[in-house]
Amino acid sequence: MNTDNLQSRFYTLRHNRFFEIFVIAVIVFSALVIGAKTYEIPENILTLIGWMDIGITLFFLVEVSVRFMGEPIKRNFFKNAWNVFDTLIVVVSLIPIEDSELALVGRLIRIFRVLRMVSIVPELRLLLNSLFKALPQLGYVILLMFIIFYIYAAVGTSFFVSINPTLWGDISIAMLTLFRVMTFEDWTDVMYETMAVYPFSWIYYLTFIFLTTFAFLNMVIGIVVNVMEEEHAQEAKEQAMANGEPTIQDLSNQIAELKEMLKSRAKSYNQEL
Amino acid sequence: MNTDNLQSRFYTLRHNRFFEIFVIAVIVFSALVIGAKTYEIPENILTLIGWMDIGITLFFLVEVSVRFMGEPIKRNFFKNAWNVFDTLIVVVSLIPIEDSELALVGRLIRIFRVLRMVSIVPELRLLLNSLFKALPQLGYVILLMFIIFYIYAAVGTSFFVSINPTLWGDISIAMLTLFRVMTFEDWTDVMYETMAVYPFSWIYYLTFIFLTTFAFLNMVIGIVVNVMEEEHAQEAKEQAMANGEPTIQDLSNQIAELKEMLKSRAKSYNQEL
Amino acid sequence: MNTDNLQSRFYTLRHNRFFEIFVIAVIVFSALVIGAKTYEIPENILTLIGWMDIGITLFFLVEVSVRFMGEPIKRNFFKNAWNVFDTLIVVVSLIPIEDSELALVGRLIRIFRVLRMVSIVPELRLLLNSLFKALPQLGYVILLMFIIFYIYAAVGTSFFVSINPTLWGDISIAMLTLFRVMTFEDWTDVMYETMAVYPFSWIYYLTFIFLTTFAFLNMVIGIVVNVMEEEHAQEAKEQAMANGEPTIQDLSNQIAELKEMLKSRAKSYNQEL
Amino acid sequence: MNTDNLQSRFYTLRHNRFFEIFVIAVIVFSALVIGAKTYEIPENILTLIGWMDIGITLFFLVEVSVRFMGEPIKRNFFKNAWNVFDTLIVVVSLIPIEDSELALVGRLIRIFRVLRMVSIVPELRLLLNSLFKALPQLGYVILLMFIIFYIYAAVGTSFFVSINPTLWGDISIAMLTLFRVMTFEDWTDVMYETMAVYPFSWIYYLTFIFLTTFAFLNMVIGIVVNVMEEEHAQEAKEQAMANGEPTIQDLSNQIAELKEMLKSRAKSYNQEL
Repeated sequence: MNTDNLQSRFYTLRHNRFFEIFVIAVIVFSALVIGAKTYEIPENILTLIGWMDIGITLFFLVEVSVRFMGEPIKRNFFKNAWNVFDTLIVVVSLIPIEDSELALVGRLIRIFRVLRMVSIVPELRLLLNSLFKALPQLGYVILLMFIIFYIYAAVGTSFFVSINPTLWGDISIAMLTLFRVMTFEDWTDVMYETMAVYPFSWIYYLTFIFLTTFAFLNMVIGIVVNVMEEEHAQEAKEQAMANGEPTIQDLSNQIAELKEMLKSRAKSYNQEL
Repeated sequence: MNTDNLQSRFYTLRHNRFFEIFVIAVIVFSALVIGAKTYEIPENILTLIGWMDIGITLFFLVEVSVRFMGEPIKRNFFKNAWNVFDTLIVVVSLIPIEDSELALVGRLIRIFRVLRMVSIVPELRLLLNSLFKALPQLGYVILLMFIIFYIYAAVGTSFFVSINPTLWGDISIAMLTLFRVMTFEDWTDVMYETMAVYPFSWIYYLTFIFLTTFAFLNMVIGIVVNVMEEEHAQEAKEQAMANGEPTIQDLSNQIAELKEMLKSRAKSYNQEL
Repeated sequence: MNTDNLQSRFYTLRHNRFFEIFVIAVIVFSALVIGAKTYEIPENILTLIGWMDIGITLFFLVEVSVRFMGEPIKRNFFKNAWNVFDTLIVVVSLIPIEDSELALVGRLIRIFRVLRMVSIVPELRLLLNSLFKALPQLGYVILLMFIIFYIYAAVGTSFFVSINPTLWGDISIAMLTLFRVMTFEDWTDVMYETMAVYPFSWIYYLTFIFLTTFAFLNMVIGIVVNVMEEEHAQEAKEQAMANGEPTIQDLSNQIAELKEMLKSRAKSYNQEL
Repeated sequence: MNTDNLQSRFYTLRHNRFFEIFVIAVIVFSALVIGAKTYEIPENILTLIGWMDIGITLFFLVEVSVRFMGEPIKRNFFKNAWNVFDTLIVVVSLIPIEDSELALVGRLIRIFRVLRMVSIVPELRLLLNSLFKALPQLGYVILLMFIIFYIYAAVGTSFFVSINPTLWGDISIAMLTLFRVMTFEDWTDVMYETMAVYPFSWIYYLTFIFLTTFAFLNMVIGIVVNVMEEEHAQEAKEQAMANGEPTIQDLSNQIAELKEMLKSRAKSYNQEL
C-alpha cells in the first residue's frame, strides 16, 4: 500500500508543469555547461548546477526504486522495455565524471545524463512511442530510396567515372555523391562538370531530384497521416465507448427489438381472436 | 449604447476588405521606406505616406479607446491579453521618431508600428492564435531534437576534435556544426574532412540527417494535422448543434420513446381485456 | 443546334488522353526549340514542329470561336474570366514571330503560346482553380512572415551594421539577407561573421530559422489540408444527395412518422372503444 | 494441387519477417560490395556473400517457376505486369558477371540484381503501387511548373542575357538556372549579379521562389492526402461490409419495414372490425 501511495505521488509530481520545466532546465543547462570552454560562467553557478543535477539523479533513483518495489513479481518489472531503459540510465548516471576520466566513459555518462529527460518527462515518451510506430514503414521507404539511388549510381559510374573519379569512382562513392545532389549541396557544380562532356546530362540530375524528392515527400507524408488517422480512429472509438454513445450497430439492434415486439404483439393479438 | 454602436461600426470597418488592404499597404510601405537609403523616393510621396501612417495610428488609438470605454468593468479590459497588447502598441506607436533618436528606442518604435497590423487585421490574430496552440507540443519536439543533437555532438567531439577544433571543439560548438549539417549548408565539406581520417564517418552524417529530417517532418506534420482535426471536429459539432441536426444519440432516444409507446399500449390493451 | 453539337465534339476531343498528350508534346517541344542555340536540331524537324504548332493554334481558334457562337447572349461570354483568358491567348498566339521581331513582343508571344496549354488541357485549369482558392489565406501567411522578418531585420541592422554593411545596411537589405538565411543559402558564412563580434549571435539565427520554418510549414500545410477537407466534404455531400442515400436527418424524420402512425392508431383505437 | 501447395508455402516464406531481412541484407550487401574498391573486405566473406546471392536468385527462379506452373492458362500469367517484371529480372539476374564483362551489360545485370528486392519483398510492391497511382496527377503538376518556369525564363533571358550569358543565354539554359534558384543552390550569387544592374531584380527571384515552393508544396501535399483519403474510404467501406456492420441505408430500410408492418396490421385490424 505504502509504495502504491508513494508511486502515485511521484506520478503526480512528474506530471506537474513547473517540476517538469525545472528538471528540463537543469538537465539542458548542465549538459551544455560541462565541457563548454567558450563561454565563461562563474564558478559558484557551476557548483549550484552540479548539485541540482545530482539532486535530479537521486530523485530519479528513488522514483525508479519505488516503482520497482511496487511491482509484486520482480521479474515482470524488467519485461517492460521502458523500465529496463530507466534502470540502465539511472545506474550509469550515478557514476561520477572524475577528472582523470576515460574519454569514452565520460562521453557515455554525459549521453546517459541527457537521456534522463526521456525517462522523467512523460510527453517525450509519447513522442518516441509514436516515432517507433512509424519506423518499420520508414524502413521500406529507405529501401526503395536505396534502389533508386543504386540504379542512378550504376548509370552515373558508367558515364561519369572518367570525368571525376573522386565523385563517381565506384558505386558506393557515386551513391554518396547522389545523396549530396539530393540535399542540393553544391549539386550544380557536380552537374556543370558532367554537362561539359555530356550536354544532356541535366536530364539525369533533374529526373533524379524529382524522383527522390517526390517519392520521399509522398511516402513520409503518407506514413505520418496514416499512423495519425489510425490513432485518431482508435481514440474516437474508445471515447465513444467510454461515454456510452450509441453506434449505428446499436440503433440497428434497437430497431430489430422493436420489430420483435410488434411481431409478438401481432401473434398474441391473433391468438386472442 | 453610444459606445456599443461605435464599437460595432469599428468592427465592421476593420473587417472591410478595402480598408484592410489600405491599412496593410500603408503600414508595409511606411515600414520599408523609413531608413531605406538604397532607393530614391520623391520627398512629397514620403510626406504623404508619413501622414497616412499617423492617420492609421490615430484611428487605432480611437478604436482602442472606444473598446476600453465600452467595457463596463475597466479592470476586465486588461484581463484579455490581446487588449494589453493593443494598448501597448498604440501607446508606443504614438512616440514620434525624432531626428536625434536613440538607436534602440527608434528600432523599438519601428517594430511596434509594424505590429499594429496584428492588432488591426483580424485574420492575423486568428493565424497567431492557431500558432500559439501548437507551441507547447512544438516545445517537446525541440527537446527531442536537442537530445538527438546532444548524442551526436558527444560522439562527434570525441572523434573529430583533432581533425577540426573550430567545428568540433566542444559539445556546444559541435551542436552548432550539426545544425549546419541539418540545414545542408556546405555539409559535404564537413563530411569530406572527417572522411579523410575515418572513411566510414559518412554513416555518422547520413544517419543524423535521416533521423533529424524524418523526426522533424514526422512531428511537425503530426502536430499541424492534430491541431487542425481538433478544430474541425469542434466546428462541425457546433455547426450541427446550431443547425439543430440530429445526432445518432438523438435517434437512439427517439427509438427508445417508440418502444415505450408500444409497451404502454400493450399494457393498456392487456388491461382492457 | 449545330454549334452545340460541334461544341460537345470539341469537349470530347479535349478530354481525349492521346490528343492531350499530343498537344502537350508539341507545345512543350516548340517552346523549348525556338531560341535554343545549344542543341543542333535538323531543319526539317524544326519545320514540322512549326507547322504542328500553327495547327494547334488554329484548332484552338476554331474551338474558341465555336464556344463563342454557341453562346446565345454574346456579352455573357466575356463575363467568364476563363473565356477572356482564352480569347486573349488565341489572338496573341496568332501574331507571327518574324525575323525582325521586337525583343519584348517576341517574348510576350512565346509566353502566350505556352499558356495555350492552360486553355487546352482541362486538368491544368482545375489545378489553377484550387491554387487560386488558397491564395487569399496565403496572403495573410506572407504578411505574418513579413512582420517576423521586419522585427529580426530591425534588430539585425542595429547590431550588425558595423560588421557588414553590405548585408545589414538598412532594414530592406537586412530582410533580403534574412530571406537568404531562411533558404539556408550560405547562412553559416553570415553567422560566423557576426559570431566573431557577438559570440551569442547564433541564438538570433537559430530562433529566426525555427520560427520561420515552423510558421511557414505550419501554415502552408494548414491551408492545404483546410482547402482540401472543405472540397471533400462538399463532394461527399453532393454525391450522397445524387445517390439518394439517406442522412441521419432522414432517419429522424422516418422515426417521427412512425411515432405519428402509432399515436393516430392509438387514438382511433381509443375512440372505437 | 501440388503447385498450389508449393505456392502457398512460398507465399508464407516470403512474408516471413526473418527471411525478408535476410534477403534484403544479402542483396544490399552484395550490391555494395561488388565493385567497391575503397574498403578492403576479406576474400572469404566476399565468396560467402557471392554464394548467398546466387542462392537467392535460384530461390527466386524456383518461386517464379512455381507461380508460372500454378497458372492454368499460361498466357494469362504474362497479362499481369508484375509477373512480366519478375520473369525479366530473374532471367537477367541469371547471366553471370564475368571478368571480361562488357561495361554496359555488367551495369545492367547489377541493376537487375538489386531490383530482385522489389520482386521478393511484398511491402515494396505496395509502396510502388501507391506511387504509380499518384503519378498521373503529378504529371500535371510538373506541366504547371514548366509553364511557370517558362514564363520566368522568357523574362529572365530578355533582361539578364547581357549580364551573364552562361546563366541566361537562351530559354532552356535560363530554365536550368531557375531550377537551380528553386533548389536554393547558390541562388544569391545569381541574384546579387543581376541586382548590380537592376536593383529591383530581387522581386523577380522572390516571387519566383514563393510561387514555385508554394505551388509545389500545395500540389504535392494535395495529391498525397487525396490518394490516401480515397484508399482509406475504400478500405473502411470494405471492412464494414466484411464485418456485416449496418450502414445508415440499412437502418433506413429497417425502419421502412417497421412502417410496412404497422400499416398492414392497421389494415388487418380495420378489416376485422
